[in-house]
Amino acid sequence: MDVQSETVPRDARHRVERTRARARYDRDTVHAILDAGMLAHVAFSVGGQPFVIPMLYARDGKTIVLHGSIASRLMDELADGVPACIGVTHLDGLVLARSHFDHSVNYRSVVVFGRARAVLDADEKASALSRFVDALIPGRAAESRAADRTELAATQVLRLAIEDASAKIRSGGVKDNPADLALPYWAGVVPMRTRYAMPQPEADLADAALPASVRRLLAADEAAA
Amino acid sequence: MDVQSETVPRDARHRVERTRARARYDRDTVHAILDAGMLAHVAFSVGGQPFVIPMLYARDGKTIVLHGSIASRLMDELADGVPACIGVTHLDGLVLARSHFDHSVNYRSVVVFGRARAVLDADEKASALSRFVDALIPGRAAESRAADRTELAATQVLRLAIEDASAKIRSGGVKDNPADLALPYWAGVVPMRTRYAMPQPEADLADAALPASVRRLLAADEAAA
Repeated sequence: MDVQSETVPRDARHRVERTRARARYDRDTVHAILDAGMLAHVAFSVGGQPFVIPMLYARDGKTIVLHGSIASRLMDELADGVPACIGVTHLDGLVLARSHFDHSVNYRSVVVFGRARAVLDADEKASALSRFVDALIPGRAAESRAADRTELAATQVLRLAIEDASAKIRSGGVKDNPADLALPYWAGVVPMRTRYAMPQPEADLADAALPASVRRLLAADEAAA
Repeated sequence: MDVQSETVPRDARHRVERTRARARYDRDTVHAILDAGMLAHVAFSVGGQPFVIPMLYARDGKTIVLHGSIASRLMDELADGVPACIGVTHLDGLVLARSHFDHSVNYRSVVVFGRARAVLDADEKASALSRFVDALIPGRAAESRAADRTELAATQVLRLAIEDASAKIRSGGVKDNPADLALPYWAGVVPMRTRYAMPQPEADLADAALPASVRRLLAADEAAA
């Protein structure tokens, strides 16, 4: 099933077995979690041996764009259209409970199922690379040179249609056992997130102004603090 | 092969096919990357369908400890000792090049291969849970109540012996094509890392002092800024 439907039917593959309260299936939630990240862990099997590979990605509508070297054996396996599963997870906080058992983390995660296909058309490949650069920082593709024919030939671009997807979210405070509330232990949440530090320009650009994409990124990072 | 050896032999499974310069196989590198994280993406197949699950983990010597609910179907599959593959990745910076093609990220990643087994002994389970809490914040296990028999019975603890492992690291600056250096585009690295924000104590602890583990975490976070 496609996450196009507002609520994705619960087949055996993507149903979240545990902690149903944390499971979300609506498309907007899935897409928002995907769009908040750039790193995916892509799993597939070759001859019964599972592999998981960290890959940069970009969502494009109801597909996920991945890329790698044309010479990668594992990319070739993926491009063959074997069943794949992609995980994207953001950690939002440490949940420190009064008991070991109730320790947890706040997080947002998505698991996507689908099959990849190689993108062969040069224009579509160039467009996918551009989208991929903008997934690192919005607006960056326009501030750098698009791929030429040689570069496109050296790049394997894969597009995976999202067949099934599910999201899980934990947020909020500690859920201690009531019997533990009188224990002499501190409990609370320590929020965490990815933050950016001062850019390090290449040596010949030490005095150059930062580009708009980086200035927006740093401003947004600061504003969220 | 085991990462116990200083250099892990390059069999077909864990050899890093591409960008050999980024590949590291020594045990200390693998362990340091694992110890810097708490979130793993665990991949395995059930009936030919790959799954990837985000899980908290802790390294314990040459094993990785995972845990979940005793009622989880996927935990049961993993506990059956099927081949598993675990990915742990830290993003360290955005690498913004003058061309789309040379955009990248700085990162440290580890891929581990092995098979999990369920930990059944109550003492070993309790000890694994304690190690797991300390993986969230060092020293935290001593600041909270250890698991009781009911909680241990409700918790599935898995221990995966690291059979193969490989690490990949990219660090440093932009690697632009020399022909692009004259282009009128900014290039550089924007460092990124996980940072912690002000702790949010449970309501009844608003005036309580922060525990030592949290104070150390925040101090280390600040010192690295």
